[in-house]
Amino acid sequence: MQGVRVGVIGCGYWGPNLIRNFAHHPLARVEAVSDVRYERAVRAGSQYRIPTVTDVADEVLRAPDIDLVVIATPSFTHHALAKTALQAGKHVLVMKPLATRLADAEELCDLAARHGVLLAVDHTFVFTGAVRKMHELITSGTIGDLYYFDSVRINLGLFQADVNVVWDLAPHDVAIMDYLISEPPVSVSATGASHGGSPTENIAYVTVRYGGSLIGHVHVNWLAPAKVRRTIVGGSKRMMIYDDVEPSEKLRVYDKGFSIGGGGAEGDYASMISYRAGDMHAPQLDTREALAVETDNVIQAVLGKGALTVDGMAGVRVVRILEAAQRSIEQDGAVVPVGAGAARKPS
Amino acid sequence: MQGVRVGVIGCGYWGPNLIRNFAHHPLARVEAVSDVRYERAVRAGSQYRIPTVTDVADEVLRAPDIDLVVIATPSFTHHALAKTALQAGKHVLVMKPLATRLADAEELCDLAARHGVLLAVDHTFVFTGAVRKMHELITSGTIGDLYYFDSVRINLGLFQADVNVVWDLAPHDVAIMDYLISEPPVSVSATGASHGGSPTENIAYVTVRYGGSLIGHVHVNWLAPAKVRRTIVGGSKRMMIYDDVEPSEKLRVYDKGFSIGGGGAEGDYASMISYRAGDMHAPQLDTREALAVETDNVIQAVLGKGALTVDGMAGVRVVRILEAAQRSIEQDGAVVPVGAGAARKPS
Amino acid sequence: MQGVRVGVIGCGYWGPNLIRNFAHHPLARVEAVSDVRYERAVRAGSQYRIPTVTDVADEVLRAPDIDLVVIATPSFTHHALAKTALQAGKHVLVMKPLATRLADAEELCDLAARHGVLLAVDHTFVFTGAVRKMHELITSGTIGDLYYFDSVRINLGLFQADVNVVWDLAPHDVAIMDYLISEPPVSVSATGASHGGSPTENIAYVTVRYGGSLIGHVHVNWLAPAKVRRTIVGGSKRMMIYDDVEPSEKLRVYDKGFSIGGGGAEGDYASMISYRAGDMHAPQLDTREALAVETDNVIQAVLGKGALTVDGMAGVRVVRILEAAQRSIEQDGAVVPVGAGAARKPS
Amino acid sequence: MQGVRVGVIGCGYWGPNLIRNFAHHPLARVEAVSDVRYERAVRAGSQYRIPTVTDVADEVLRAPDIDLVVIATPSFTHHALAKTALQAGKHVLVMKPLATRLADAEELCDLAARHGVLLAVDHTFVFTGAVRKMHELITSGTIGDLYYFDSVRINLGLFQADVNVVWDLAPHDVAIMDYLISEPPVSVSATGASHGGSPTENIAYVTVRYGGSLIGHVHVNWLAPAKVRRTIVGGSKRMMIYDDVEPSEKLRVYDKGFSIGGGGAEGDYASMISYRAGDMHAPQLDTREALAVETDNVIQAVLGKGALTVDGMAGVRVVRILEAAQRSIEQDGAVVPVGAGAARKPS
Repeated sequence: MQGVRVGVIGCGYWGPNLIRNFAHHPLARVEAVSDVRYERAVRAGSQYRIPTVTDVADEVLRAPDIDLVVIATPSFTHHALAKTALQAGKHVLVMKPLATRLADAEELCDLAARHGVLLAVDHTFVFTGAVRKMHELITSGTIGDLYYFDSVRINLGLFQADVNVVWDLAPHDVAIMDYLISEPPVSVSATGASHGGSPTENIAYVTVRYGGSLIGHVHVNWLAPAKVRRTIVGGSKRMMIYDDVEPSEKLRVYDKGFSIGGGGAEGDYASMISYRAGDMHAPQLDTREALAVETDNVIQAVLGKGALTVDGMAGVRVVRILEAAQRSIEQDGAVVPVGAGAARKPS
Repeated sequence: MQGVRVGVIGCGYWGPNLIRNFAHHPLARVEAVSDVRYERAVRAGSQYRIPTVTDVADEVLRAPDIDLVVIATPSFTHHALAKTALQAGKHVLVMKPLATRLADAEELCDLAARHGVLLAVDHTFVFTGAVRKMHELITSGTIGDLYYFDSVRINLGLFQADVNVVWDLAPHDVAIMDYLISEPPVSVSATGASHGGSPTENIAYVTVRYGGSLIGHVHVNWLAPAKVRRTIVGGSKRMMIYDDVEPSEKLRVYDKGFSIGGGGAEGDYASMISYRAGDMHAPQLDTREALAVETDNVIQAVLGKGALTVDGMAGVRVVRILEAAQRSIEQDGAVVPVGAGAARKPS
Repeated sequence: MQGVRVGVIGCGYWGPNLIRNFAHHPLARVEAVSDVRYERAVRAGSQYRIPTVTDVADEVLRAPDIDLVVIATPSFTHHALAKTALQAGKHVLVMKPLATRLADAEELCDLAARHGVLLAVDHTFVFTGAVRKMHELITSGTIGDLYYFDSVRINLGLFQADVNVVWDLAPHDVAIMDYLISEPPVSVSATGASHGGSPTENIAYVTVRYGGSLIGHVHVNWLAPAKVRRTIVGGSKRMMIYDDVEPSEKLRVYDKGFSIGGGGAEGDYASMISYRAGDMHAPQLDTREALAVETDNVIQAVLGKGALTVDGMAGVRVVRILEAAQRSIEQDGAVVPVGAGAARKPS
Repeated sequence: MQGVRVGVIGCGYWGPNLIRNFAHHPLARVEAVSDVRYERAVRAGSQYRIPTVTDVADEVLRAPDIDLVVIATPSFTHHALAKTALQAGKHVLVMKPLATRLADAEELCDLAARHGVLLAVDHTFVFTGAVRKMHELITSGTIGDLYYFDSVRINLGLFQADVNVVWDLAPHDVAIMDYLISEPPVSVSATGASHGGSPTENIAYVTVRYGGSLIGHVHVNWLAPAKVRRTIVGGSKRMMIYDDVEPSEKLRVYDKGFSIGGGGAEGDYASMISYRAGDMHAPQLDTREALAVETDNVIQAVLGKGALTVDGMAGVRVVRILEAAQRSIEQDGAVVPVGAGAARKPS
C-alpha cells in the first residue's frame, strides 16, 4: 500500500483541521470529502486538491478506494455513519463523543471487531504534550497513588442546541480522565442547570467515584466570564496542574504532599502530620499539534505499525460516564452506578 | 453604658485576631480572656492589659461585668459554651460554624430569642470588601437574576483531625453563598474522599440546588498544590469573579452574557444566540480588615444602634447546608433535601 | 476605479499576512506578488489566484496596472524599493521600519510629496484595539497630562543577523509611543549588549526624553526566558497597562494617582501627599485583526476617502528615534539630541 | 560574653522589625532603643521590655553596655550616627543605603577597619531565600556566564520628600545586583523624572555597564498602577526570573538559551542559531524571614563565628552606583564612569 486513502465526512468546524492534518501526513492521502452543505466540502476540497467532493456521505462511506473514514459530523449522526462505514469494511475515526448512547457506542465496537477493522475515537486532548507527559508521570510511578482528578473547563462559549454542555465539553475532560486513570469507575453523579431560556444545560458538575478513595470531578460551563481550562491531579507522591490557558509551562509538577506519622502524642493529630513542600517543575512539553500526533497514530495503526492510543473501547468508556452523568442530571443528581459490564481497560 | 465589655474564650489561632479587634474598638473593652492552655491566655492578656486572664471558661461565661461573650474554641465546644453564655444573659459571638449539628444551632437561636440577647456568628468573609460589594451589586439589580454560585477554596492546608474539610473550609463559602443568595436551598449533595491515612475527608465537592435553575457549588480541598480561592457568580446581566488570591482588584465584574433571540431560522439555534462581551470593571473595595468591620457591626448591634449582619439564623442556615453535605457524603453522594423547616431569610 | 490594484513585494514571514488582508478587502485586488525565492511567490499567488507571480521586484514596482505597492522585504531594501515605486507614481506601503537611515526615510517622504502619492508605513500595533483605545483615552483627556511611557517587549526570540534587537523589536514600541505622544522628542540614549557570539545587540534599553518631565523607555530583548509585552502609560489623571500577552482584558485603565496638597505641616511632606486608588476598568476592545484595520485605512486613503493613520512622517519620526538609539549604543550610551529638524506632528 | 547587647536608633517604619528580630534572637538582647519621637521608642521598648528607652541617640551610641548599634534612621543621618558609634568602638549595622555620599560611605568603612569593629549594611533582599538561591545557582556555575541583570520595582508608592526614587527603591535592586555580580561596574547612566509637583524624581531608569557584555538595568517607579517586583538574570546556560509578587514559586529557573553554530550556509544566519527550550524549575526556597537570616548573620559575625554577608564594602559599592546614577540624572543621562578606585569585591 502506498499510503492510507482517507475520506472525511463533515467539513464544519473541526473537519477542516482533520483534513489539513491528514493531507499533510506523508503516508496519507485525502481522497474524498463530503458535507451536506456542499459549498463547505468544495472549499475544503479545493484547498487540498481532493479528487472527490460531494454532499452525499454515502459516496464516501462506500467508496471502494477509501481505507479510512473520518467522521466529523454532529454527535447524533456518529452512530449511523460509523456503522455504515464499519459494515463496508472501512477503518473509522469518529469525533468525540463516539456516540450519544452507550448501546450505540458498544455496537460500533462490536462491529469493528467483527469486521476486523480499526475503530478510533478523536479524543484530541489525549494527544497534547501535556496529557501525554501526565500519563508518563503517572505510569512511571512519579505521581504515586492517584488521589483525585479535578478538571474545570469553562468560558463564555458556544451554546449549542442539540447537546448540552456535558456532551459538548465534558468529553474532553472525561477522555483525559479515562486516559490517565486505569481503574474502572464505580458511580457517577451530576448536576446541571440551564439558564436564560437555553433548552439544554449550560453548566454542569460531574462527580465520578472510583474504587478506594480515588475521586474525579469535572466542572463544565458555557456561561463563565473568564476562560479556565485547568486539570489538577493529586497523588501520594506528587501533584500536577495542567493549565491549558497558560501560554507556556502548561504542566506544573509539584513535589508537595503530606504524610501522617506515627509517634504523635495522644490526640495531638496536628503534630502527626508532616507536610512536604518541595520544588515545582515544569517539564518541557512536545509542542506538536495534538491532532498531528493523533492522525499519525491512526495512520500508523491502519498501516499495522502500532496500536491505537484511543480505540473504540476508550470511546465506550467515555460515553458510559457521559450517559451516566446525563441520567444523574435527569434524576436531580442521583448517584448512578456505572455497572458490572463496564468496559475494562486491558491490564 | 460606656462601652461593650467583652470576654473572649479561646486564644488559639483565631482568638487573638478577635481580641485585637475588640481591644482596638473605641466602644469596646476586653475584660476577660480564657484558654484551657493558660499560657495562651496570658500572652493575649498581657499584650492588651486585659484584667482577667484564666483557664476556666466559666469565669468568663458567667462573669457579671461581661456584656458580650466571644467564643473562639474548637467547633465541637461551640454549642455548650454558647448555651451557657446565652443562659447567663450574655450577648454571644460564635466562630463559624455556629454548631456541629443543626439541632444544636437551632437551640442556640431559640435561647437567644428567649433571653432577649443577640447571637452573632463570625462569618468573616461576609465582611470583606469584596463580598459586601458583591452583595451590593446583587441587591441593586446590577447582576440580574442569579444563575450560579461557584466557589473553589483549595490549598495544601492544615489537615485537622476533629473536622473534615467540609466543616473546616466550606463554612466560608457557604456563608458567602447564604449572604448573597436570598432564596432557600432545596437540596444538597456532596462527595468527599480521604487520602493518605487521613481519618477525615480532605477533599469534597458540595452541590446546592435552589428553586428554579439557580445552582451552587463548592470545592474544598486541603491537598492541592496551589492556593485557589475563587468565587464566580453568574447572573442574567453580569458575572463576577472574586479572586481572593489576587493582591489587588480582587473583584472583577464582567459585562458579559448571552441572550436567545426570536426570529432565527427553523432549527438554526446558533444564529438565535447573541453574546454580549463588554467591559470588565474592578471596583475599588473597602480595604478595612474584615474582622474590624465585623466587630464594629457586633458592637453597634449590642449598643442597639443597628442590626447584626450575620445573626444566629444565618448560622443555622449555614449549618443546615453543612450537615446535609455531611449526610450526603456518608451516603455516597445521595441527594439530601434541605427541608420544609428551613430557616427562611426574612424578606 | 473599481478598487485598488495591489502589488506585494516579499512573501516571507509577514508578506502573506498582508496579501491575505488585501485579498479579502472588498475594495482591493492583489494583482501581483514577487519574491526573490520564486517558490514563496508561487505559494502565495496560487492561494489567492493572483495573476502575476514573479521573482523580479521590478515587474511589480513598475507594472502599469498597480496602484499600491506593498513592500514586505528585509529592512535594508526598503529605501531602494520604495524609491523606485514612488518614482513610478505608485502609492506605497512599507513595512516597519520605513528605512534603516533617517536620511533615506526623509527622502522617501519628500518623493511621495513630490509625486503626489501616498506613503504609508506598517506600524501594525497602532491599529490594535488596545492602542487605538489608549489613543482615544489620551486625546479625550481621560488620562490627563502624560507622565511616562514604559514598554517592555522581551522573549526568547528570533535572533536576526542583519539587524539588532533595536531595529527589529523597538519599532513596535517606538511607533506606539509616536502615535500616543504628540510632542517631539528631545533626546535619546540607549544601551545594548550582544551575547553568546551574536553579531548584533540582542538586548537594549532605549530612553527617550521629551520636553517637560515626560519620559519614554523601551526594553527589548531577544534572550528572555518568558514573553513579556507590556506597555504602561502614566498620566496625571489615570494610568494604563496594555498587556498584550493577556488573552483578554489586554488594556486596563486604573483610576489611580496622587496629588501634593497644600497645608501640610512644615517639613511633613508625607502628610501633603494624597493617593487616589479608585476602580480599574478594562474596556471592551475592537478585536478585529490589526492588519485588517490597517489595510482598510490604507485602501480608503488611496481611494481618497480618508487620511492615513500612519504616514511617511510617522515613519520618519520612528526612524529618527531608532537611529539616535543606534548612535547612542555605538557611543556607549551617550545622550543623542533629536534635533531641530525633527518632523513635527501636525497639530 | 553571654550574647550580643544591641542598641537600636530609630523606631519608625523599619526599626520595629529589626528590634523584633534581635529581641527574638537567642544570642542577642536589645538593651536600648531611641527615637527622636519619644513615644515611638516607648512603644517599641515596652513591647519587648527593653531596659533603656530614650529620645537621645547619643545615649545609645555611647552606652558602655552596648556591643552592636543598629541605625534605622533616615538616610541623611546614617553617616553622622554610624561615625559616632564606630568611633565609640561599637559594631554597627546601618540601614540601606549606608550613606548618601560615596565619600561618607568610604569614611565609615575606614573607621570600622581602624577601630577593629564590624560595619554591616542592611541589604535585606540579599537575605531572602530567592536571592540566596540565585547566588548559589550563579556561583555553582548553573547559570553560566552572566549576560544581563534586569530589575523592575514599581508600585503606587510612598512618595518621599528627602530622597528620590533612586535612593529609596534602587538600593534594593543594586544590592541584589552587587551580591550576584562579582565583577566591578564600569559606568552608570540614569534618567529620572518628577511629576505632579513632586520635588524629587518618582521614576528612574538606571543602566550599569560592566566589562565584556554584561549589563545591568534597574527600573524604579513610585507612580505605577500595579505592583511589579521582578528581577530577570540571563546567563549562557540558564535564565532566572525572581518575581517577588508571586505568593509561591518566587524563583523560576529556565533551561532556555541559544547557541550560534558553525556550519550554516553562507549568509544564512538564521539556520546557524539553535534555541534550547527545556524545563522550568522552581526550587523550594528557604521561607525564613530575610531579616531573621540577616540578624543572625550579624550576630554570628559579632560573636566571631562567621563573616558578614553584607559588609561595609558592599555598602560602599552600592552607594557608588547610586551616586553615579544621581549624577547622571543631574546631567540628563550622561554616562558616568565608576572609577578606578572602585571597591573591588574580594576574589
